[in-house]
Amino acid sequence: MDLLIIAPIASSASIASAFYLYRYVNRHDAGSPKMREIADAIRVGANAYLKRQNMALALFVVVMAIILGVALVSHHLAIAYILGSLCTTLAAYFGMNAAVRANARTANSAKKGLDKALPVAYFGGAVMGLSIVGMAVLGTSILYYIYSHIYPDPKMALNTVLGFSFGASALALFAKAGGGIYTKTADIGADLVGKVELGIPEDDPRNPAVIADNVGDNVGDVAGMGADLTDSYIAGMIAAMLLGAAIYHEAKYIILPLLVKALGIVASIFGILFVRVGIRGNPGAALNRATFATCIIFTILLFLTVNFLNLGERGLGIFFATVAGLIAGVIMGITTDFFTSIDRTPVFKTAESAKTGAAINILSGFSYGILSIIPPIIGIVIAILASWNISLMFNVNPFYGIAMAAVGMLATLGTVIAADAYGPIADNAKGIAEQSGLGEEVIEAVDRLDAAGNTTKAISKGFAIGAAALQVIALFFAYATEVGIPQMVINLMDPKVLAGVFIGAMMPPVFSALLILAVGKNAHRMVEEVRRQFREIPGLMEGKSKPDYAKCVDIATKGALRELIPSGILAIAVPLAVGFTLGKEALAGFLGGSIVTGIIFALLMANAGGTWDNAKKYIEEGKFGGKGSDAHKAAVIGDTVGDPFKDTAGPSLNTMITVMALAATVFAPLFL
Amino acid sequence: MDLLIIAPIASSASIASAFYLYRYVNRHDAGSPKMREIADAIRVGANAYLKRQNMALALFVVVMAIILGVALVSHHLAIAYILGSLCTTLAAYFGMNAAVRANARTANSAKKGLDKALPVAYFGGAVMGLSIVGMAVLGTSILYYIYSHIYPDPKMALNTVLGFSFGASALALFAKAGGGIYTKTADIGADLVGKVELGIPEDDPRNPAVIADNVGDNVGDVAGMGADLTDSYIAGMIAAMLLGAAIYHEAKYIILPLLVKALGIVASIFGILFVRVGIRGNPGAALNRATFATCIIFTILLFLTVNFLNLGERGLGIFFATVAGLIAGVIMGITTDFFTSIDRTPVFKTAESAKTGAAINILSGFSYGILSIIPPIIGIVIAILASWNISLMFNVNPFYGIAMAAVGMLATLGTVIAADAYGPIADNAKGIAEQSGLGEEVIEAVDRLDAAGNTTKAISKGFAIGAAALQVIALFFAYATEVGIPQMVINLMDPKVLAGVFIGAMMPPVFSALLILAVGKNAHRMVEEVRRQFREIPGLMEGKSKPDYAKCVDIATKGALRELIPSGILAIAVPLAVGFTLGKEALAGFLGGSIVTGIIFALLMANAGGTWDNAKKYIEEGKFGGKGSDAHKAAVIGDTVGDPFKDTAGPSLNTMITVMALAATVFAPLFL
Repeated sequence: MDLLIIAPIASSASIASAFYLYRYVNRHDAGSPKMREIADAIRVGANAYLKRQNMALALFVVVMAIILGVALVSHHLAIAYILGSLCTTLAAYFGMNAAVRANARTANSAKKGLDKALPVAYFGGAVMGLSIVGMAVLGTSILYYIYSHIYPDPKMALNTVLGFSFGASALALFAKAGGGIYTKTADIGADLVGKVELGIPEDDPRNPAVIADNVGDNVGDVAGMGADLTDSYIAGMIAAMLLGAAIYHEAKYIILPLLVKALGIVASIFGILFVRVGIRGNPGAALNRATFATCIIFTILLFLTVNFLNLGERGLGIFFATVAGLIAGVIMGITTDFFTSIDRTPVFKTAESAKTGAAINILSGFSYGILSIIPPIIGIVIAILASWNISLMFNVNPFYGIAMAAVGMLATLGTVIAADAYGPIADNAKGIAEQSGLGEEVIEAVDRLDAAGNTTKAISKGFAIGAAALQVIALFFAYATEVGIPQMVINLMDPKVLAGVFIGAMMPPVFSALLILAVGKNAHRMVEEVRRQFREIPGLMEGKSKPDYAKCVDIATKGALRELIPSGILAIAVPLAVGFTLGKEALAGFLGGSIVTGIIFALLMANAGGTWDNAKKYIEEGKFGGKGSDAHKAAVIGDTVGDPFKDTAGPSLNTMITVMALAATVFAPLFL
Repeated sequence: MDLLIIAPIASSASIASAFYLYRYVNRHDAGSPKMREIADAIRVGANAYLKRQNMALALFVVVMAIILGVALVSHHLAIAYILGSLCTTLAAYFGMNAAVRANARTANSAKKGLDKALPVAYFGGAVMGLSIVGMAVLGTSILYYIYSHIYPDPKMALNTVLGFSFGASALALFAKAGGGIYTKTADIGADLVGKVELGIPEDDPRNPAVIADNVGDNVGDVAGMGADLTDSYIAGMIAAMLLGAAIYHEAKYIILPLLVKALGIVASIFGILFVRVGIRGNPGAALNRATFATCIIFTILLFLTVNFLNLGERGLGIFFATVAGLIAGVIMGITTDFFTSIDRTPVFKTAESAKTGAAINILSGFSYGILSIIPPIIGIVIAILASWNISLMFNVNPFYGIAMAAVGMLATLGTVIAADAYGPIADNAKGIAEQSGLGEEVIEAVDRLDAAGNTTKAISKGFAIGAAALQVIALFFAYATEVGIPQMVINLMDPKVLAGVFIGAMMPPVFSALLILAVGKNAHRMVEEVRRQFREIPGLMEGKSKPDYAKCVDIATKGALRELIPSGILAIAVPLAVGFTLGKEALAGFLGGSIVTGIIFALLMANAGGTWDNAKKYIEEGKFGGKGSDAHKAAVIGDTVGDPFKDTAGPSLNTMITVMALAATVFAPLFL
């Protein structure tokens, strides 16, 4: 139990490193007044959105905390819930502020060369990565320490810590889905009128929606994605701790998941240092080097720790199961990349089909999006079967073994988020360089940074969705243990379970449909506004007067918040309704069904969107008629369809299934 | 057991009625030489496709029969398999020939008024309806009679009869998927070049792909849909018989599903007579009257039969469970209609969003397509829970009760197919009336027939998919009984079962992606060909020379067959691979997973397609700018995306999950 101290130490080190990197980024020059002006507009817009969102959500969090406290007669649970929400909010806020400071500084550093710009962009992303995993592990370890002194039964203590996870997840759902609606409203609005109707370039300062669009990249991708991955990370960790408590009743096994995460954090801090590139180097390779270095350091630390803990053959089993999860995660990311990579068959075929028109282009991207579910699903299946069999071989409880595989899969999350948050920073840097008229050489450098960001984003998205599925499977086992389903049997032939499976399976697609409809509704308003400004503001098209950026930011913000709440409540209310009316077995079936379709729709949408996006970029490189051709117009339509797929609905689904599983587990005592 | 004689008598009566209606249709005049010419081209094209398809499939059927015979050491099974394939082929062939004869005759009768034209179109569809259910029940009852004399154990006999179902399903899969690829290749090819690029009307005789398009309606919708629904019909019936044999070991319960189907046939024969309409009447209402009349007659006959069989309280339980299935089916059809109906919110909103461009139109239709899964899934859940609880109340085995609900849901299939096959007949009649320049009044009459057909088609599609899901659930129970899974427990917490669920859930989306890619590939060829003809044939655009119709028919045919085989083999090979490597429990999980995503993707695709289609039609009625406006162009893109969704991939999925469940059950002895 004394070993528990490692967790707060490692996580505090992580937060301290994040602060250090934040100051490192800030020490760089933000460039010309023009560049500062654009960057400031983005930062102000992003913070305005976040502030508004947080105020709306604060009310929700308080209401929910009261419900939790009253319904389950536990003010500790309510406090943990609020702390979880706060932690995620703070980390997202901090990370996003680093990102919106890093963008102009990256563009400015690019004047001195690629090698100078990459660290600014990457360390800007690493602030998010390190602060968020630090907060997660710090919060969990401190709460567990306190509650294990209040409750003599570690299971009771962990049930309360689960409130922390629930708070983090509920907030992540809103951050991801709300941010997703925001960013796509702005993006579609800017593109449809600007690029398609008026033929002006992307990121053109004449476009009234351009600032909202740049804000959106930060709100949706940095803040949203950070919050999103973290919630799986926490849920998987606590699920493994719960299984450890239920199965082994021994402190070592309970705190092991926490320790593993702490090791992952240490590995991430060192791994991040591996990002370096020459003036003519390949930034993508540099990012991958950091990821692989982190994995290797983590594996070594894990092996040493397991030996130190003296768990005997069981230790070896846990080591292999954890590493199996880690490897499966890496493979998932890389294979998924095939379907969205610009130099592979799916993107080529989708771009080619744009020659026949938008419809065939859309059908092609959609189909490849579906086919992209094959590698991650096989990855999950192998991770499950491998860790199960390894567990049986080494005398580890197989449920615990699968949960440790899930913990291992996300252990190196710090580096993953860093690479992921790097994407929008590079994207914004490119936008700022273009809008402020930096030289061609600078634009080429940031363009290369941006391209590398798109690939890392695609890889980490595939990885994130697959990993989330495995975390929720661990949570599903934890739920079953929690409600004491007799001998852990959930029988598919029981009509109530079958009914639960059907209803659960229905939830993720329905949730994504609601989000997409929200984007469509909001984008419609945005398009009308952008058209109005071009019509009514004299001299706008000629660049003689300035558009009203703030109005567009406002439309995107208001719409996102209004459309968000009903779908969010659905995710908490439906599992509880199933539990109360059909019972705990049906709810288990419900969770199972939701995991299956959740991962399928999340992958399908994320990857179809990526394929369309890159097919468009491929044509813009001059293929199949190039920019302005009919094929290009068709590809732009495909890309627009893909926008809410890949940036709103797809990435919200992992959080949604996590929230549902947490709601089920936290409220379980009520329908027992 | 003597009661079994009712089944062959009723089904023979059904086939005889089909012959009578076929002659009734043929007695009508096919109209002017111009009309005959067009109708002949369609008939010749359709038969050419069917002949080619059947030749290709004959080889497949023989190979498969040999595999079955050798692997399971049963030549009876091989023979039953061949008979099942033959029965479906014959019924589809016969029904399609009635349809291609009814189209010109409907158009010609419309000269004398709507009241004269409706019976020709409807009875033309009824030929398909009555012949196909007749063949199904006749084949099943005779085979069961023979095999129950060869094998003393009724379960053994039924296992062999299952070969009949497997043959029918395998053929249905090819007919539906192949027909679906064919029809959409032609449709997209004709529309993209004709309507979009050149702005000539639909069904314009100058368009080289127009005959292929008309052929496609018959090949895909009549032959394909007929084969498709029948295979669920047979599978559900034999699954119930198998459960009856396994649970009750009593002849009464074994033959009851057959008897219920026979009653449904009798009710359909009488129900069809209710289709009558005045000269100014509403053809849609007339079609619905037939459906409701059939349901009422069926319910009365069922009540009398159950009483006659002297089953005591159990009889009442079976009666209620069966009727619960019937009612759930009707409700599913009607509620699903909401999402695709031209005068409801989803279609209106989707049409409205076309004003913002094609992308938002597509996103809207896609989202409503997803939301449309809610009513059928709730319908299935209620059907399962209701029949389960009714069964427990009346001392019926609940698995048998659910199977009887499935039998009841599809009992009135004769009328359902009749209304469904009516659709393409009316559609073709409209095409012929326009192409041969009949007067405005005639065109208006056939237009109203066509509109009614679109609604019945939408209703029966929703119904068909929901019903198929319940049949496969019955089959899933039959499989579990067959492989003797201990005490009928399939544990979701067993990692092998979980792995099976994931792999199974992956199958339907992957299958539909392969079909859509096939359509895209083939449509690409068709577009090139149609463009070539307009470019190279002098005077074609001016209507001075004739296009090469045959070339287009040929491209559609060849492509369909080439793309088809790999996906078909997948549907049989993967379940067997899962069974052999992961075992019978995993295979059960596999089937469960496939049912869940199968129904979700089938409904999503069928209904999104219907919504886009009707949104386009709504704009064509003059709303949001009407024909030729930007909104209309956007809606045409949405409609084109929807084409393979609703007519290729969506409707193939029910057959696909049935084939997988049958493959699992038939080959079960091998992995026991």
